[in-house]
Amino acid sequence: MPASDFAVIDRIFHPRAIALAGIPISDPGHWTRTFLNSLMEHKFPGPLYLVNPRGGEAKGLKVYRNISEVPGTVDYVISTVPPRLAAAHIAECAAKGVTTIHFCTAGFSETGDPDHARYEDELLKAARQYGVRVIGPNCMGIYCPESHVSFHTEFPRESGPVGFISQSGGNAIDVVMSGRWRGIRFSKTISYGNAVDLDESDFLDYLTEDAQTRIIAIYIEGIRDGRKFRRSLTRASHAKPVVLLKGGVSESGNRAAAGHTAVLASNDHVWEAVCRQSGAIRTYSLEELLDVLVTLIYLPHPGGRRAAVIGPGGGSSVLVGDVFERHGLELPPLPPSIRESIGRFTPIEGNILRNPVDYSQNIVEFDKLAEATRLLARWNESDFIVGYVRPNLAAPHLLGRITPIINAMLQGARSGKKPLAVVFQPGVLPNAALQMADIAEKFLAEGLPIYYSFDGAARAISAVQSWNERREKVA
Amino acid sequence: MPASDFAVIDRIFHPRAIALAGIPISDPGHWTRTFLNSLMEHKFPGPLYLVNPRGGEAKGLKVYRNISEVPGTVDYVISTVPPRLAAAHIAECAAKGVTTIHFCTAGFSETGDPDHARYEDELLKAARQYGVRVIGPNCMGIYCPESHVSFHTEFPRESGPVGFISQSGGNAIDVVMSGRWRGIRFSKTISYGNAVDLDESDFLDYLTEDAQTRIIAIYIEGIRDGRKFRRSLTRASHAKPVVLLKGGVSESGNRAAAGHTAVLASNDHVWEAVCRQSGAIRTYSLEELLDVLVTLIYLPHPGGRRAAVIGPGGGSSVLVGDVFERHGLELPPLPPSIRESIGRFTPIEGNILRNPVDYSQNIVEFDKLAEATRLLARWNESDFIVGYVRPNLAAPHLLGRITPIINAMLQGARSGKKPLAVVFQPGVLPNAALQMADIAEKFLAEGLPIYYSFDGAARAISAVQSWNERREKVA
Repeated sequence: MPASDFAVIDRIFHPRAIALAGIPISDPGHWTRTFLNSLMEHKFPGPLYLVNPRGGEAKGLKVYRNISEVPGTVDYVISTVPPRLAAAHIAECAAKGVTTIHFCTAGFSETGDPDHARYEDELLKAARQYGVRVIGPNCMGIYCPESHVSFHTEFPRESGPVGFISQSGGNAIDVVMSGRWRGIRFSKTISYGNAVDLDESDFLDYLTEDAQTRIIAIYIEGIRDGRKFRRSLTRASHAKPVVLLKGGVSESGNRAAAGHTAVLASNDHVWEAVCRQSGAIRTYSLEELLDVLVTLIYLPHPGGRRAAVIGPGGGSSVLVGDVFERHGLELPPLPPSIRESIGRFTPIEGNILRNPVDYSQNIVEFDKLAEATRLLARWNESDFIVGYVRPNLAAPHLLGRITPIINAMLQGARSGKKPLAVVFQPGVLPNAALQMADIAEKFLAEGLPIYYSFDGAARAISAVQSWNERREKVA
Repeated sequence: MPASDFAVIDRIFHPRAIALAGIPISDPGHWTRTFLNSLMEHKFPGPLYLVNPRGGEAKGLKVYRNISEVPGTVDYVISTVPPRLAAAHIAECAAKGVTTIHFCTAGFSETGDPDHARYEDELLKAARQYGVRVIGPNCMGIYCPESHVSFHTEFPRESGPVGFISQSGGNAIDVVMSGRWRGIRFSKTISYGNAVDLDESDFLDYLTEDAQTRIIAIYIEGIRDGRKFRRSLTRASHAKPVVLLKGGVSESGNRAAAGHTAVLASNDHVWEAVCRQSGAIRTYSLEELLDVLVTLIYLPHPGGRRAAVIGPGGGSSVLVGDVFERHGLELPPLPPSIRESIGRFTPIEGNILRNPVDYSQNIVEFDKLAEATRLLARWNESDFIVGYVRPNLAAPHLLGRITPIINAMLQGARSGKKPLAVVFQPGVLPNAALQMADIAEKFLAEGLPIYYSFDGAARAISAVQSWNERREKVA
């Protein structure tokens, strides 16, 4: 992307002053107040101006009746003015020197109504005429922790390696909020809606060159310029891992996408081919997208498809084998030599010394667990180690055992020099959720990937390993 | 099943007095203390005797050195004596008049060790010789809330419609504990392990006739007598819905199953055919098993495959269509007449009046939401309604809106006389887990099925509907 184009978008992520145009005055509980609340709570350092023809005051800030009355310069506007006023609004903003407007407002072409579609045409025409760049309409805009710009009060304050482009604002919120608990942090997140001006390819090109972004994720419903998108996606995928979730592949999903962001979604096979050819990692649900991001951040190089698995529970050890093989991973049989080595300090009753190793009886003998894990890690038929823990199995007062169990696994895996993935299986029940989230946070900080189901872990590790294999083949 | 056989097993679920043989004395934290703790905390009303050659006292109860010293009669023994003493132990128990022994002890044929396998042969021989019935070895035994018998302190005290047969003790715990939060309660749960005497078919026959059991679930790793099992499964499936999870269908899962419960697991295709021919509902993970149970309890007759969906979030509305169609459900397009009816009181901006109906902008206008849902429910192209809510979207102080939103959907669906399923999508984050569990509990009590992902809901509803269709075809 030309340096000048990069600079234009980079400036969007680092606005010097923001005006909120159309901010609700009489109804402080209106949901679009999220922009003011978020910018204040995230401590946006630049000037923040409120604009509404009614004037008045909100949260201690004066409300200007028109953007022209704002005293200082403004480069970025978050606008919730009605669709019919959008074009005129652009003219006023341009006169004030505004370079970019994020139109949060919905009610354009996505409604399927010709009058509303006309507002969108007029909006675009005005933007071109006045040289103003537009994000949206019908979207949540920008989240950029390093510049304290956010559209949700609860989003993390700290930055991370993932740049996320989401056509849907709701899905952007879901991914960032879930990511908060999964150890995923974001360099930038863009909810871009109807994409009349700046589109998925523009942001993709930007993130491809953005030094703060190591991994790119995209939720996309449809594209306007297929050739441009393929080119951008291929370039991006050559530079960094790109994870893609395509919404609207079914008949009803397609209809919904048309109503949501006014796009013509296309056939599922086309997207399969686009991902294969470009080298992007395709996912099929938000949950899978999150699991793949966890893997790319914490287990980017499993080293192969062969897992050595250890944890408590014979039934779990049976199911993990089934699930891993279903997703194309392998659990090679444990050779007699390693069975004997582990058997030297592990009783045969109630443990299963195969692969998976069911370490039910000795799971709280932490030295033994660490040594058994070390032996699995040093085994040359294993590429990575999977340790599972089962919060449900224990009474609440026994949850304290989970940390030393994972510590023992980690110690064993590290001294055997193999990566470790930890699975909370099956999931975590509500009564243990906060306690387990604390435990997860501690281990994520140590660089350990945490998954909440065998299925999620297997699918994501397999997807990332497939991506590694394709890259090795090309290289 | 002959009445006499039914009576034998029924007595196991209603023991008059229980002895715990081999109870650990010196280590009160030993995990097998769970039997004593659970029976006491569940207030088992009959006499409870402790037996260990060391004698002494535990939890205020005298420990007898031998079962022969126990003063009263004992019909049921939970035994953790070592494998090499098992056969002799049976003889002693028989002399005392014991009719059933649950051998929790592991270390028999599942170890693959010839000496340990011999202990199992001797155990079975003694059981036959003395006419004592055996559950196990290598299992957790019986949970029966109505008779206050449990092997986990945290299991629910109240009974429910599901009879669960699980070869694995750990998976039994996972299902009952997860079921506790999903609104699933159990008439009986049996963890039966190596099944040397009483096996899956015996318990299946029993549950088929048990009036307290409306739905049967089975987790099975392998069977000893295939013909007997097919017959029992077919009979059971004709009487009640039977949900089956087969563990050990992969190479490594098979190996693990052999090490876990000493079975020869068989080929996946065989199990596919067994389920199809018998009429059982096959599932592929614990999570799916739970979702199908929720459906059978709360949404047993969706009435067809056509869903009408409503909730907040355009991105969600796109993904729900994709996921539902992937699992063989349908979302028919909303006819203009209903779009117009809903449009009369719903602005076009920020809502999508298709199917799914994205009710983002008006989700907290509860009267409108109820009326929109009612119109969807009265639509003759819809068989059932799916309402989704998104706890992640809201700041924590807004979670209070979830209950009135679901109430409005419920009111609308009921006045339109269609069943409603509610999905928390995407999942629930740890900070909201307990609050959302409370909300779920309230609605489960009103008979509303709650799911934690679109994928889980779609897969389970489709599985149950397929089962309904097969039954209609046969009938």
